[in-house]
Amino acid sequence: MTPFTVGIDIGGTSTKFGLADREGNVFHQDSLPMIDFVEFEDFYNSLAKTIRAAAQTAPTGYQLVGIGVGAANGNYYHGTIENAVNLRWKGILPLGKMFTDDFHVPCLVTNDANAAAVGEMVYGKAKGMKDFVIITLGTGLGSGFVCGGELINGHNGIAGELGHTTVNPGGRYCNCGKRGCLETYASATGIKRTVYKLLADHLEPSELRGISFEDLNTKMISEAAHRGDVVAKEAFEYTGRILGMKLSDTVVHTDPEAIFLFGGLALAGPLIFDPTIYHMEKNLMPQFRGRVKVIPSGLENQTAPILGASSLVWDHLEKKSK
Amino acid sequence: MTPFTVGIDIGGTSTKFGLADREGNVFHQDSLPMIDFVEFEDFYNSLAKTIRAAAQTAPTGYQLVGIGVGAANGNYYHGTIENAVNLRWKGILPLGKMFTDDFHVPCLVTNDANAAAVGEMVYGKAKGMKDFVIITLGTGLGSGFVCGGELINGHNGIAGELGHTTVNPGGRYCNCGKRGCLETYASATGIKRTVYKLLADHLEPSELRGISFEDLNTKMISEAAHRGDVVAKEAFEYTGRILGMKLSDTVVHTDPEAIFLFGGLALAGPLIFDPTIYHMEKNLMPQFRGRVKVIPSGLENQTAPILGASSLVWDHLEKKSK
Repeated sequence: MTPFTVGIDIGGTSTKFGLADREGNVFHQDSLPMIDFVEFEDFYNSLAKTIRAAAQTAPTGYQLVGIGVGAANGNYYHGTIENAVNLRWKGILPLGKMFTDDFHVPCLVTNDANAAAVGEMVYGKAKGMKDFVIITLGTGLGSGFVCGGELINGHNGIAGELGHTTVNPGGRYCNCGKRGCLETYASATGIKRTVYKLLADHLEPSELRGISFEDLNTKMISEAAHRGDVVAKEAFEYTGRILGMKLSDTVVHTDPEAIFLFGGLALAGPLIFDPTIYHMEKNLMPQFRGRVKVIPSGLENQTAPILGASSLVWDHLEKKSK
Repeated sequence: MTPFTVGIDIGGTSTKFGLADREGNVFHQDSLPMIDFVEFEDFYNSLAKTIRAAAQTAPTGYQLVGIGVGAANGNYYHGTIENAVNLRWKGILPLGKMFTDDFHVPCLVTNDANAAAVGEMVYGKAKGMKDFVIITLGTGLGSGFVCGGELINGHNGIAGELGHTTVNPGGRYCNCGKRGCLETYASATGIKRTVYKLLADHLEPSELRGISFEDLNTKMISEAAHRGDVVAKEAFEYTGRILGMKLSDTVVHTDPEAIFLFGGLALAGPLIFDPTIYHMEKNLMPQFRGRVKVIPSGLENQTAPILGASSLVWDHLEKKSK
């Protein structure tokens, strides 16, 4: 019998899922567009049906051992999604219980960045590490902490909201209702805002002056920087300065061995890593300097959300069997 | 047989120790002045001899089960004190191994704030709590984190240096070599610096204008504030604003149930708690608001360092026996 898991990544525009074995091979993938579902019940029923059909395509001798779900506002303790900011269904969605009742296997739910952290530990570059942090740089900034080999969930199950630490109390408006949160500077959206601020403040010519805010993306800024565009280069420097400064605060909290950067902005490579590392080191107290690796995630952007969700199951089963 | 522990608190001016039972009764206390010892060997031998003599005064049927040491720069993993900033002996002091070899019981070493955290969990108000933070507001600002019932030690054993997060990169000079660290604002020394800054900037009459920096202490500032002194009151407000703002960053890292404030500055009561709580809440993202208790430590200032060190042993033995 070869055990396999279902990893589900619930996002604002689509829900992706995949069937994965312990080695991280994803042997079936599919997705559902969220716009098709007005009621949560309809969404759940459709997802469960699609998963059941997919599971029947698994090779002979393969057995489903658990379901993992990564979703913004996922709560590990309750197996729920609670008041999700990016879904149309408000209140508390008891997804864990629903899947367990239907499929008779454990179902683990957590937020997407925590799932990425466990994914990094089970499948990625954090294998064997006991203390690390993952930072996901996408539309916002998510984070997951592993300390002493355990995911930090916190008292209310909502630990790891580094994106909402404060850079500047009177700074940029954030979706959370505050101002000056880290993710308004350090994220795919944050660097776009920085480009627009630089274009407003300075006179330098820049190829980015011809692109609307809606059209602009990290890849364009990255390519412009590689061509020597002054504004694009300065946008990465500014983003890395703020991210590095705040990561130095994080380091002295939990003393991690490594910080993994994941997501669109992390794909810019040295453009974002170099200033981030420089300013993190500069702001660290001496005894921490040179001791923390800041490196790209070992997971592929495409399968990472599915593997992250799937890894929750392996982590749960393996700790249980000890 | 009644088990007891020795709790040792190694400080810059004196080393205090006490014999304590599981209920937190300290039935013998003593101290050694650090100035008496030029060589570390002499210090250790004298301390071991004094402890051995004290242990023999324990009631019949009492048995030593372990030794706990709290010290700045204590390293839990190695049982060492490493390059302590406040001791005359540099390099690595292998205190854990020395005590274990001599007394044939486990010896646990950690930094003083981590010891306070375990003390709060074993003897104080954090009994039964799984996720909390302790902040010690003394000469500097120390911190200890407990997540999921475990003390966070970190990869290098130096987690919990919240005092050296950055408030202002160009701010006050800190002993660590950086500028603008939290402890230069939020500590017994920090509030003195704030009083002097306020006296420099403003024209208001204040009874604190007659006191030298060396003579000034938290109690005087607190008493002046109670008498309505404008500068003293503003100093607490300023300190709480900075501490609260930085604690909001800490809360979103580990999602604690409670933050305990300990030490001289915490004794000022509402003068420091009120602005700290107000500004922490104001800077928290909405989903965390109203969920974190900020409360005084449940340990007495006098015996806390001894009980904190002693609690390391109970925590170690009780986790081992599970």
